[in-house]
Amino acid sequence: MLMEASRKNLLKMNKKIANNGINDFNLKSYLKEQQEIINNKLRKVLSLYDIKRGLIAAMEYSLMANGKRLRPILCIAAAQCIGTNNQKSKEKAMLPACAIEMIHTYSLIHDDLPAMDDDDFRRGNPTLHKKFSEATAILAGDALLTHAFSILSNPLQHTFKPLSSDALVKIISIISDAAGTNGMVEGQVLDMAASLTIESIEPFEYIKHMHALKTGELIIASVKTGGVAAGADPDQLKQLVVYARNIGMAFQIIDDILDIEGDSAVMGKQAGSDEANKKLTFPQVIGLKASKEYAKKLVSDALKSLESFEEKALPLEKIAQYIIERKY
Amino acid sequence: MLMEASRKNLLKMNKKIANNGINDFNLKSYLKEQQEIINNKLRKVLSLYDIKRGLIAAMEYSLMANGKRLRPILCIAAAQCIGTNNQKSKEKAMLPACAIEMIHTYSLIHDDLPAMDDDDFRRGNPTLHKKFSEATAILAGDALLTHAFSILSNPLQHTFKPLSSDALVKIISIISDAAGTNGMVEGQVLDMAASLTIESIEPFEYIKHMHALKTGELIIASVKTGGVAAGADPDQLKQLVVYARNIGMAFQIIDDILDIEGDSAVMGKQAGSDEANKKLTFPQVIGLKASKEYAKKLVSDALKSLESFEEKALPLEKIAQYIIERKY
Repeated sequence: MLMEASRKNLLKMNKKIANNGINDFNLKSYLKEQQEIINNKLRKVLSLYDIKRGLIAAMEYSLMANGKRLRPILCIAAAQCIGTNNQKSKEKAMLPACAIEMIHTYSLIHDDLPAMDDDDFRRGNPTLHKKFSEATAILAGDALLTHAFSILSNPLQHTFKPLSSDALVKIISIISDAAGTNGMVEGQVLDMAASLTIESIEPFEYIKHMHALKTGELIIASVKTGGVAAGADPDQLKQLVVYARNIGMAFQIIDDILDIEGDSAVMGKQAGSDEANKKLTFPQVIGLKASKEYAKKLVSDALKSLESFEEKALPLEKIAQYIIERKY
Repeated sequence: MLMEASRKNLLKMNKKIANNGINDFNLKSYLKEQQEIINNKLRKVLSLYDIKRGLIAAMEYSLMANGKRLRPILCIAAAQCIGTNNQKSKEKAMLPACAIEMIHTYSLIHDDLPAMDDDDFRRGNPTLHKKFSEATAILAGDALLTHAFSILSNPLQHTFKPLSSDALVKIISIISDAAGTNGMVEGQVLDMAASLTIESIEPFEYIKHMHALKTGELIIASVKTGGVAAGADPDQLKQLVVYARNIGMAFQIIDDILDIEGDSAVMGKQAGSDEANKKLTFPQVIGLKASKEYAKKLVSDALKSLESFEEKALPLEKIAQYIIERKY
């Protein structure tokens, strides 16, 4: 009996060593801690403006809703892979992290508009155009997008630590390319067109391309700019991009699956809304089982790309696993 | 008789000298030449993308409409005040000039939307949401705004001459601040609110503040970034800003006057539309005569601020005069 217990302990220890201490890392605490840091920082950035102004109140309503902060956390976690001083790397990544969350929030506000997806709820709350007005939602989205570039081009004035001009220009280029004409905006165009032209397209290629642009590019930008802020070299950036491309797509597949299998109360939005909105989804195109397998394969590829970062990549690894196991 | 002719010639010559050669300068040709250079450049920037894509076609429809190109011309003319090589200064200013025209165009697209000013025509053509769709107009506006920062942060990739990272960061900061939360977007918020709260405000202060944000800030940014691109020192930038602040306000006052006195066919939009839309206008607040006098005073102040640039400021001087004399 004692022998058996020792053997089990030994096995457990071996597994722990093989996992690079992965069992010591509590993802839930990590995510919560980063969320708090990001929320405090975003609140501080907004506090430079008069909340009594309608525009600022509208920006705050959407920006400070209970978002998962996935993109800024990825940005910070990627920075942690780089350099020797974990804390310094994280601090440097706060600037792109917050800018990207502003851009992500603007995209949600505009996507929800009546002329677009016409959604009444977001994260369990009325969408901005429902709470305020359509004009306010358009303008608050515009302001958040523009504000991202204001903070990126003048960190000090917006309570961020300074970065070199070379790093700032690189970060602005990565983010604007990811969010724009060949990135997120085109992804939304393709998403809206999909419901119209669903008969005339090769759906698996189309949906992959659409999501690569609509959500993938900004997730890649999150990880890449975190790396740039912390001083990553080109090889490191390449590995981070492979990770991000894979988890970005996996994230979207799981989103589609949760829309079918998920609990509306947990998700804060209606399950089955994709079908109601005639959205092109992965389960619809390749089936539920194949979608789950595809997501697993993507996460496994993502994990492989992190190997050279060793234990520094622990947060990124755990986030990849969480993406596939999440319930909302 | 001969004596009389000589005397007249002498007077003419003296006047010419006193005007620093102002009579040799043909503003119409200058504006036309700059417009062509800017149009060619914007067309070149768009040609990097597939025009068959709906988003690109929509961006092109609005960006290549027959705009006056006032902001980019101001940017170029300001750069001409700086440095010793006129041509080089102009070339350096092309980057902020084009970025600002993209941002100006996005702002027109969004302002025209049904939820905002609900305009059917712009520059004599159907507005973008009328020609394409509301969703396309929102997205093309978003894309143009984002694209401005893509070209600013990676000039070479977008066919522009490179600038130093320090200059780029400064230019991006100036433009994003002017276009955003404390600039153009807030100006549109105030403009829309004015028609609702017109009874409860001090109208002259309100309209000045509203236009300073809605149009003034981006006009200041045009002149300022032209200066920065050409290497202006802080004193020179200060003088350029005084010029821009004054002509920006004058431009708006004349806009309001033309809406009453103007010829719809020449303007490409309906005269009297401000009154129909219950817009707060200068003639309505201080009367037509006082509005004209105020605009003249502003232009005179603008001209004074250019004195130290001597003959290099000729284009800026002539533009200031044109602003007050224009018919559309």
